[in-house]
Amino acid sequence: MFGDDAVSRSLGIELLEFGDGRSSASMRVTDSMVNGHAVVHGGYVFLLAETAFAYACNSRGPATVTTGAEISFVAAAEAGDLLIATAEERTRFGRNGIYDVTVRRGDTVIAEFRGRSRTSGRVEGEA
Amino acid sequence: MFGDDAVSRSLGIELLEFGDGRSSASMRVTDSMVNGHAVVHGGYVFLLAETAFAYACNSRGPATVTTGAEISFVAAAEAGDLLIATAEERTRFGRNGIYDVTVRRGDTVIAEFRGRSRTSGRVEGEA
Amino acid sequence: MFGDDAVSRSLGIELLEFGDGRSSASMRVTDSMVNGHAVVHGGYVFLLAETAFAYACNSRGPATVTTGAEISFVAAAEAGDLLIATAEERTRFGRNGIYDVTVRRGDTVIAEFRGRSRTSGRVEGEA
Amino acid sequence: MFGDDAVSRSLGIELLEFGDGRSSASMRVTDSMVNGHAVVHGGYVFLLAETAFAYACNSRGPATVTTGAEISFVAAAEAGDLLIATAEERTRFGRNGIYDVTVRRGDTVIAEFRGRSRTSGRVEGEA
Repeated sequence: MFGDDAVSRSLGIELLEFGDGRSSASMRVTDSMVNGHAVVHGGYVFLLAETAFAYACNSRGPATVTTGAEISFVAAAEAGDLLIATAEERTRFGRNGIYDVTVRRGDTVIAEFRGRSRTSGRVEGEA
Repeated sequence: MFGDDAVSRSLGIELLEFGDGRSSASMRVTDSMVNGHAVVHGGYVFLLAETAFAYACNSRGPATVTTGAEISFVAAAEAGDLLIATAEERTRFGRNGIYDVTVRRGDTVIAEFRGRSRTSGRVEGEA
Repeated sequence: MFGDDAVSRSLGIELLEFGDGRSSASMRVTDSMVNGHAVVHGGYVFLLAETAFAYACNSRGPATVTTGAEISFVAAAEAGDLLIATAEERTRFGRNGIYDVTVRRGDTVIAEFRGRSRTSGRVEGEA
Repeated sequence: MFGDDAVSRSLGIELLEFGDGRSSASMRVTDSMVNGHAVVHGGYVFLLAETAFAYACNSRGPATVTTGAEISFVAAAEAGDLLIATAEERTRFGRNGIYDVTVRRGDTVIAEFRGRSRTSGRVEGEA
């Protein structure tokens, strides 16, 4: 659960809410996260989304890894913007889960992320 | 082209090769990039892949943005590992492009990334 | 709107509900849709999902195309199963849209689909 | 290996080549595959791509399933067009594989597909 803390701290990511397959987390865009066009590098938006995703997954159990993700960049964000990522479980099956994360600045959607997780522990009902 | 330099510098990403729809770039995993399991946070692998992708895209023209990407995490990397991302244009159509990036540590594949780009400038033959 | 009717008819896809960025559609799995393991070929699940997606998109305007999609196969379906796809708009931006489709048999999730659309008509506020 | 034959036959898909993590397969677009705009329904392009993908996967072993896929639609195809899908293994790790499939009409790319597979049999070196 607290595995990502060092990364989160270095990026200023704060966990706002967490539990029952959901989470939300915030990050303020800093000057070191923007590129020459003054817009945030998409990778930092991904980092925030993936952090919220990991919190949401880990609310279900301790040993979950991200196996992959799809992200669509919807709008640009700039230095100083406060981004909030909201993660929600979409479905779970066997050791696998799919979670959707929306990253927003206020009401504006910045990115839509869909992550795939896999649990390494034993799963009920598995052969 | 040099738009991502500040981000690249802060992460220690070095451009190794660049041109003709291709690029390669390296990044050394630092302690601040790993989580509590001592493995690199997937978001930093995404950042490296997306940087190589942006260099490859921009070798085709100046005003290209990432509209989205899919990443699969194949193997874990740890602090101290040197990761190399190799980007290659898969196809271009109208203002759009698809680029594949493989991130490796030596011969071991760490992640497979497929990015989608869109050019904001005028495109030949467009209505 | 009724553009996909020939395809829908040949597959027995029925539109159950439609409007305001949403739709649902059903398809019964036939013997010609299953492979040698007696499970439905994933492509037919994709076809159902994409049809529901197209109805949901087109509830927003007439000239929308699918630019891409991501699908995760969650559970197998067999000949005789009745599948229902429910499509919902996730976000729209400029000419683009993202729609999520869940395919179910009863309460069991069979697949999760996320589609990307683009409108070819003029969009308000566009430069 | 021959598990998809009924589906392939009903769609007129022919296996052109197969082995060593690769395959190619063809399909002629029929009137029942096109929508009201006279362009092929993307789902049939997906079906062709996924069939080539399945042949390529199964060249590696008998019990492989598709866990998911991403497809980008690049250009439209019409009734009468002959489409050829070429599948190639990108990487394998543990029970998992990633395969890339390009669908073309002549030299024109129609779609780019990336599929994820998982083998249900025992894998060497697995804990």
